[in-house]
Amino acid sequence: MKNNYLKVLFGLIFLALVGCQTSDTDSSDLLVSQKLQQKALSSDLAYELVESLTVEVGPRLAGSEQDLVAVKWAESKLQSLGFDKVYKEAVQVPVWHRGQAKASITAPYPQPLVITALGGSIATPIEGIEANIVRFDSLNALQQASHNEVSGKIVFIDHITERHKTGKGYGKSVGGRAKGAIAAAEKGALAIIIRSIGTDHDRMAHTGMMRYKDGVKKIPAAAMSNPDADLVNAMLKRSNDIKIKLQLSSENQGFATSYNVIAEITGSSKPDEIVLIGAHLDSWDEGTGAIDDGAGVAIVTAAGKLIQDLPVKPARTVRVVLYAAEEVGLIGGKTYAKTHQAELDKHYIAAESDFGAGRIYQIDFRASEQGYAGLSLLSQPMTENNVAIGNNTASGGPDVSMLPAMGVPVASLRQDGSDYFDYHHTPNDTLDKIEPAALKQNVAAYAQFAYLMAQSTVELRPIAAK
Amino acid sequence: MKNNYLKVLFGLIFLALVGCQTSDTDSSDLLVSQKLQQKALSSDLAYELVESLTVEVGPRLAGSEQDLVAVKWAESKLQSLGFDKVYKEAVQVPVWHRGQAKASITAPYPQPLVITALGGSIATPIEGIEANIVRFDSLNALQQASHNEVSGKIVFIDHITERHKTGKGYGKSVGGRAKGAIAAAEKGALAIIIRSIGTDHDRMAHTGMMRYKDGVKKIPAAAMSNPDADLVNAMLKRSNDIKIKLQLSSENQGFATSYNVIAEITGSSKPDEIVLIGAHLDSWDEGTGAIDDGAGVAIVTAAGKLIQDLPVKPARTVRVVLYAAEEVGLIGGKTYAKTHQAELDKHYIAAESDFGAGRIYQIDFRASEQGYAGLSLLSQPMTENNVAIGNNTASGGPDVSMLPAMGVPVASLRQDGSDYFDYHHTPNDTLDKIEPAALKQNVAAYAQFAYLMAQSTVELRPIAAK
Repeated sequence: MKNNYLKVLFGLIFLALVGCQTSDTDSSDLLVSQKLQQKALSSDLAYELVESLTVEVGPRLAGSEQDLVAVKWAESKLQSLGFDKVYKEAVQVPVWHRGQAKASITAPYPQPLVITALGGSIATPIEGIEANIVRFDSLNALQQASHNEVSGKIVFIDHITERHKTGKGYGKSVGGRAKGAIAAAEKGALAIIIRSIGTDHDRMAHTGMMRYKDGVKKIPAAAMSNPDADLVNAMLKRSNDIKIKLQLSSENQGFATSYNVIAEITGSSKPDEIVLIGAHLDSWDEGTGAIDDGAGVAIVTAAGKLIQDLPVKPARTVRVVLYAAEEVGLIGGKTYAKTHQAELDKHYIAAESDFGAGRIYQIDFRASEQGYAGLSLLSQPMTENNVAIGNNTASGGPDVSMLPAMGVPVASLRQDGSDYFDYHHTPNDTLDKIEPAALKQNVAAYAQFAYLMAQSTVELRPIAAK
Repeated sequence: MKNNYLKVLFGLIFLALVGCQTSDTDSSDLLVSQKLQQKALSSDLAYELVESLTVEVGPRLAGSEQDLVAVKWAESKLQSLGFDKVYKEAVQVPVWHRGQAKASITAPYPQPLVITALGGSIATPIEGIEANIVRFDSLNALQQASHNEVSGKIVFIDHITERHKTGKGYGKSVGGRAKGAIAAAEKGALAIIIRSIGTDHDRMAHTGMMRYKDGVKKIPAAAMSNPDADLVNAMLKRSNDIKIKLQLSSENQGFATSYNVIAEITGSSKPDEIVLIGAHLDSWDEGTGAIDDGAGVAIVTAAGKLIQDLPVKPARTVRVVLYAAEEVGLIGGKTYAKTHQAELDKHYIAAESDFGAGRIYQIDFRASEQGYAGLSLLSQPMTENNVAIGNNTASGGPDVSMLPAMGVPVASLRQDGSDYFDYHHTPNDTLDKIEPAALKQNVAAYAQFAYLMAQSTVELRPIAAK
């Protein structure tokens, strides 16, 4: 403990020496930050929130009936917590209905497969599509294949997702899910079934958004579980002539209105300047949306509540944004950026929690180089909560990822995501996957972050080139 | 190593001193036993067998089309391995069709539930059964409830299965699955949905056999996953008025013929005396039957093959029995006992492998007290393979569990089942759950066991009272 206090002290001295204003990062802010940490670590609020959301609302696919139940839940919860302001903003969201998903190997060794439709996929004909499969290691391999290899077949992209604390394996494999149907259709494929983008060995398929492209035929898209992909590979060792039958009844059903739900703690001296902490309220429909992103909703709400309850409010307004429709294309985030275009220059910094409930081990920023240096010193109190000060290449989380291009600085509070992709976008995304103590540590980090940023006098703009 | 050789030597001396015949447990048997272990640990045969069964046959519910595919697979595999005899014996098995299983909480917080029909369950009416639930900690608690508490409701038995190396948690909770529908119907319940009998936190329900009783109304029976049971409990903290809707289309469809598939290595000097090592060929239909009981099939087949390949065959016949229809009521085991009634007195000892593919840590016996003492010494070579000599209270495995009552000694080669009930009777029972090295250790143990028993001159009968 002592050692860290010394670090902070030296940091502040350094800050003074390099000429930054230090009036707002004084010892009273350090005390408040410590207090926030203590309170966060002893509060069950975040766990109660994510329990409430998963139990009383459950799955809440954007544009579904339950999505609006979630919006009501959020409004009512934020109001009951006593935030200075609670309001919602309309978001037009695409409506996709999952329907039934069924697949089986029909030759040479008939067996059922465990699959799930990818979000946005069209249906197959009712009788299904039955065809030989053609396997590729990756989206890249598919893109390099000839039309002849692929035409008339069901494409199977077999990209294994590697486990990493940072989740970087997902970034490597998810292209096949997002763009596989386009690449496959361009070469005449009838459908695509990918190996799930997930690090588990559970016989559960991982859903997630896929895209079509204007001018390219839409083909049905699904994912099979990792054990099923292993099974198909074992068959491919025996025969190249493997037939799969795929039946999906998914449907795109136009658009509906959902809402970004927002709560604010009004800043005491710069109320028009905003520190944004967000998470997304929508979830996929097969789990209860506990780690994705009930945890984030709980973390930023509980962090906001701690700041709301401070005897003296920080200088800037802290805005808690619960985004709509992240899963189906960052719709809430994009809509927020548009709706708030005029005040984006008043957004001091923004961060979204959307990577489960693993402990935060590092905070990265995206600001000017000098701003980054200042924030690095300013954020020293967070190291007490085992959050290291990281780099200046953050993207800030999905729903705020478009803000840096609009000049808004962001931060990424990096969570340990070692097991995140075991459960992500599957029925296994349930409350039991959240460790209460880790959730508290997250709340502490977000509360400290929001408070320190709301008090900061460091200039963060213009953002440095990456 | 050396220390164990000394133990064996002392054991043999002791055996000689207590007056047992030692002519067949001489040093050449020890050498053969060691050789079998070496060969087992360096052979991939068992893994290849379980891969072949799970990939080329897959799910093989007793009485289904795939069940007969499995029988053909077994006959052909055993023949190709060159056993002295391969034959099959007809078994009449009940045919149950799973159909669709669907459930949701309809009030106060509507959410879908992940469930599975229990084996043998009848269907609900097509429109389903919707009713309030009544929760019990255990079958015992249900049995003690009043008719009034239960009548007109859906019973929810919420018995958590504890994790143990021995699997003893299953024994404590499985009563609710097997007999819950009877107890619930006797008190006027409309249906029963139990917490899955499983130790995992996966959102997968565990199926398994349930029973009805003549004279008691048949009601539909299902299991929900552990996370779903947690969800229901979280709702019960908020309200006692929880409604569930259950739809099952399961069907009992009479009887079909399946087969026990049998291979033998003919004994060199006592060919009419039998050492039986078995496993069951059928599986539940939602996984590929890798750990239950593809692993067992592979273990005893590979062990038999090692004995078949010995330059000098052991005294007794080693019989490898791949039982039909274990899952639906030990039907293959019971039929075997009946079919072979006349030669049961020639069965020296029997053991079944049906607990996954975890390492064997102990061998228990069920024989006369003197027989047990003799076997304990005789089995010393197995300690080289990390198999400790256990007690005299074995039951021998499900399909041989009825044999002790008919005078036949049995052995239980105890596997580490710490994670067995994570996957048992779920879609997650797939090949990736088997550790190849552990499978080899099992083969070594079964090969040594079968060989030492086939050579033994210890008298095992009559079996001591438990």
